[in-house]
Amino acid sequence: MKSKILDRLREGNFVSGQSMADDLHISRTAVFKHIKSLQKAGFIIESVPKQGYRLIGETKKLHPLVFNKYLKTKFIGRPTLHFDEVASTINQVMLRADKADEGLVVVAEKQLEGRGRFSRHWASPAGGIWTSILLKPKCPPTEAARLNIIASLAIAVSIEEVAKIKAQIKWPNDILVKERKVAGILTEMVAELDKINYAVLSFGVNVNNSLPAELQGQAISLRQATSHQVDRHILFAAILNKIEDYYIEWQTKGFDFILDSWRQYCSTLGQIVEVKGLNKVLKGKALDVDENGQLILRTADGKKHYLSAGEVTLPSGGS
Amino acid sequence: MKSKILDRLREGNFVSGQSMADDLHISRTAVFKHIKSLQKAGFIIESVPKQGYRLIGETKKLHPLVFNKYLKTKFIGRPTLHFDEVASTINQVMLRADKADEGLVVVAEKQLEGRGRFSRHWASPAGGIWTSILLKPKCPPTEAARLNIIASLAIAVSIEEVAKIKAQIKWPNDILVKERKVAGILTEMVAELDKINYAVLSFGVNVNNSLPAELQGQAISLRQATSHQVDRHILFAAILNKIEDYYIEWQTKGFDFILDSWRQYCSTLGQIVEVKGLNKVLKGKALDVDENGQLILRTADGKKHYLSAGEVTLPSGGS
Repeated sequence: MKSKILDRLREGNFVSGQSMADDLHISRTAVFKHIKSLQKAGFIIESVPKQGYRLIGETKKLHPLVFNKYLKTKFIGRPTLHFDEVASTINQVMLRADKADEGLVVVAEKQLEGRGRFSRHWASPAGGIWTSILLKPKCPPTEAARLNIIASLAIAVSIEEVAKIKAQIKWPNDILVKERKVAGILTEMVAELDKINYAVLSFGVNVNNSLPAELQGQAISLRQATSHQVDRHILFAAILNKIEDYYIEWQTKGFDFILDSWRQYCSTLGQIVEVKGLNKVLKGKALDVDENGQLILRTADGKKHYLSAGEVTLPSGGS
Repeated sequence: MKSKILDRLREGNFVSGQSMADDLHISRTAVFKHIKSLQKAGFIIESVPKQGYRLIGETKKLHPLVFNKYLKTKFIGRPTLHFDEVASTINQVMLRADKADEGLVVVAEKQLEGRGRFSRHWASPAGGIWTSILLKPKCPPTEAARLNIIASLAIAVSIEEVAKIKAQIKWPNDILVKERKVAGILTEMVAELDKINYAVLSFGVNVNNSLPAELQGQAISLRQATSHQVDRHILFAAILNKIEDYYIEWQTKGFDFILDSWRQYCSTLGQIVEVKGLNKVLKGKALDVDENGQLILRTADGKKHYLSAGEVTLPSGGS
């Protein structure tokens, strides 16, 4: 209903409450409540006695009433729940995970307790994209890393398309622009050994937000990198569109093509790297990533190691 | 405190409420309440005016106040929460998982909604062992199947020790006696791609319980198999003791020895089997199981397949 009211207002002229009430078969009080709610969502709507309502400006918030016009998905973001502020979008999805269909998206302007891998803090101030998607892929948990691969490819490709700047993927879950982190991905799941009950695919993109001083040098926003503001609505819809495309391709055709595309964007492959895992540190050449997202590393003794997790650094002097 | 009162009562004579209150520095009312609670837990305690309390019989329930005397663990079953009836022991552990230390055990006389793999119903009438253990192993989710391996080995070895009957393991998570299912294991987890936040290791053992008519033929209880009652307390403590031993060995020394022992009990290896997975059915020779619990199957075309999940049947005429 809010979307229909917005469509009328977007025609540009004053629209009377009575005419909207008549057209939409609701009361004038209902129209008034929807207008209030649109204003709360950040739409600038003036109300002039005897003339009615007029849309002065679209909301600056990353609201589905704006980005839905760019969204081509069947189920991802259908619906999207928008929050001005949450502790973490992950928690909001998990609360709804058992009952909700896959595709539910939660997006927030700010996260107070945004988290990255290993329960680390993830700075999520206003101006970025902070979001989580509920997915219920029919696969064992050993294949869950494919969600990371899908999301990192979707984000890298969308950044290049929308922000017109080169993006790279750093295994396993970072997106780099100018060799600094512009986005990160976190997949959490509730699973049996045989099957994923549900997964929550979360990502954060530094778009127009400022960055905490301690992250300067290692992180970057798209605004910093391009020297201009980037439209969050277009970027976010592009990412969701691609995630759905790749996800459907994986579930119906297979994963090979996605993985091949991912390899083109991956800056880690072919490098001598140091990988800090849960229990050990390994140094070697990053040969490839297999279909379950494992990094194949060849150490100096010629042995191949399959790593499902870890933090990659390029050792100084490494080539 | 209840344990101390029980110790006094187990000495065999009448013990006055006043003397217990004095010894334990609590009020007589507190003693009375503990006695009531012990009676509720199934201990048969008579109360005779001027003589005091006397223990007539131990509880028949699978209560920590009984099986703790056989328990040699450091953290598993410390504590154990006992319920007469729950929907499922898994849920009870999950409710407490974030705040509880690893090792928490929930055990119930009956489960109303016991579940097996793929959310199937698991019949859990009185007389069996229905339990879940909270574990927080420091490993990625790709290694979670090791919990199944540990539990299946612990159950098979303990059944042979306590019930004096040959037990076998059917990959991935059944224990067989006389080629019928006597126990099953289910591991669920909440995880990131890199690390398990927590896992709930659950198992059910048909001990002295009856079995639903529709399971006759494929399932068996230890009472049926041995023609006598088996002491659930001794069996349960034996299983928990071994799970902790193997778990500590895995986390401190490695997994090789456990896997080797497991292979000795596994009836699947060396057989021609049919494995029904999430998406496909494969027939071939079960060559081995790798350290992440994957069955290595060689199909007729000579290809090796690594299966993390599936339902194994022996095709008729297979050898």
